[in-house]
Amino acid sequence: MKIGIVAPARAITQEIAARAAAVTAVAYPAVDLVFHPQCFMSDGGHFAGSDAVRAAAFLEFANDPSFGALWFARGGYGSNRILDTVIPQLGAAAANKTWLGYSDMGFLLGALYARRIGRPVHGPMVGDVMRNGGDGVVARSLGWIVDRDRRGLEASAGKQPVAAFNLSILVALIGSPYLPDLTDHVLMIEEVSEPMYAVDRMLFTLSHATQLKGIAGVRLGRIGDIQPNDPPWGERAEDMIVRWCADMKVPYLGPADIGHDAANKVVPFGLI
Amino acid sequence: MKIGIVAPARAITQEIAARAAAVTAVAYPAVDLVFHPQCFMSDGGHFAGSDAVRAAAFLEFANDPSFGALWFARGGYGSNRILDTVIPQLGAAAANKTWLGYSDMGFLLGALYARRIGRPVHGPMVGDVMRNGGDGVVARSLGWIVDRDRRGLEASAGKQPVAAFNLSILVALIGSPYLPDLTDHVLMIEEVSEPMYAVDRMLFTLSHATQLKGIAGVRLGRIGDIQPNDPPWGERAEDMIVRWCADMKVPYLGPADIGHDAANKVVPFGLI
Repeated sequence: MKIGIVAPARAITQEIAARAAAVTAVAYPAVDLVFHPQCFMSDGGHFAGSDAVRAAAFLEFANDPSFGALWFARGGYGSNRILDTVIPQLGAAAANKTWLGYSDMGFLLGALYARRIGRPVHGPMVGDVMRNGGDGVVARSLGWIVDRDRRGLEASAGKQPVAAFNLSILVALIGSPYLPDLTDHVLMIEEVSEPMYAVDRMLFTLSHATQLKGIAGVRLGRIGDIQPNDPPWGERAEDMIVRWCADMKVPYLGPADIGHDAANKVVPFGLI
Repeated sequence: MKIGIVAPARAITQEIAARAAAVTAVAYPAVDLVFHPQCFMSDGGHFAGSDAVRAAAFLEFANDPSFGALWFARGGYGSNRILDTVIPQLGAAAANKTWLGYSDMGFLLGALYARRIGRPVHGPMVGDVMRNGGDGVVARSLGWIVDRDRRGLEASAGKQPVAAFNLSILVALIGSPYLPDLTDHVLMIEEVSEPMYAVDRMLFTLSHATQLKGIAGVRLGRIGDIQPNDPPWGERAEDMIVRWCADMKVPYLGPADIGHDAANKVVPFGLI
């Protein structure tokens, strides 16, 4: 299977690509990882090329029928800036693809799922091969893309419709036409590098979103790399999610095995 | 005029209250500033008392007909956590009040304006008396509340309906029933202590919000205390707002004289 790699937000290095290719060659010799040159570009600042460059690379691979899947290079910030350009230009070849990523890529996964284009999957990205346990990251990602190997799935996935998001990305989608209809879905959320007051504020937005009134319940992934709160924050994350779920009148269903780490499991949107 | 002071988010000190009272005694001797004891309370962590304590203090003063206005003590985080409790319990006495504050108080100003309860005003808070130029802060705030003194107004206010928000608070309201209908309003935004990628992401949410499609235009207040961006951010704030306004198909109308500083001008919501 040919799998395309693009970077709708930040760039990766050649070192990261080489490591991903090497692990893939051993574990999945039949897989042809194709890195778009855009993955290594820079706009001189935050992004892997300008908005136009990133949009063109995504569209080129997304509309190429020879690719079975797009595996996103890494997160950062910026995939929201290409949505208005790319979503209306996706053609028939996009409808057959699996899209794998998380974090900032949630903008694309959400927008694609809103229009039911292909199969959006929340899971590891190419850049995660550099973490401790990077081999497992590749096995889990390609295992799902190539073989639909269920061993890498988040344990609760597949029993009813699900969706998974970084909380910051989810709340940034709320109010927009790119937020998918998640009626009857279990919603999994995770977060990284935020102070707890900001997490609490995002949970307010989540719990008061008219668009999300019909969800079946919430699972809480890992809240990693918590930033200092001044004054100190007194409440545990699980108590917060229980409180906001009560406000939202939906059940809190327990933890989710997702997060910005090497253990991040695979969550295919919808039913498997 | 009796003006009540409550703290729906963080507490103030007795020193701050004493300073505000002293300046007021000289400049507005007819004003009776009444500090609710809740202003000085702590829940042991972030908040000026528990959610229940803060909600009760707000309701006590908001529903007391002897107060002509409520002047919020300071921001921080937390006024969103009392909305579900307080908004449905506001009575006839609340309809005659002016509500003055900004930053986190935008949750209350927005929710009050959504129901057209009293006169929400974006402007300085009690805690701002400790800034350099604190006397001017009091003059501007009480000048508007007591005398409808137009000298403290943001220069563009009053020509057509306006509303002003901290950007983080505005986007946290998007998607909820607490976001007021801002059709035909000029929207002023300001921000503080965020990295530029996060400001850009919030502008995405603003520009894609279905609820805000009818606004008349946007003015950009000050973006203060910008946090580091890694990698460096390459775009100026004004270029960003121009770009997102173009996406939103509304005019960018220029700067607004508001921000987290002593120069923060007064913006009464709606028409004056």
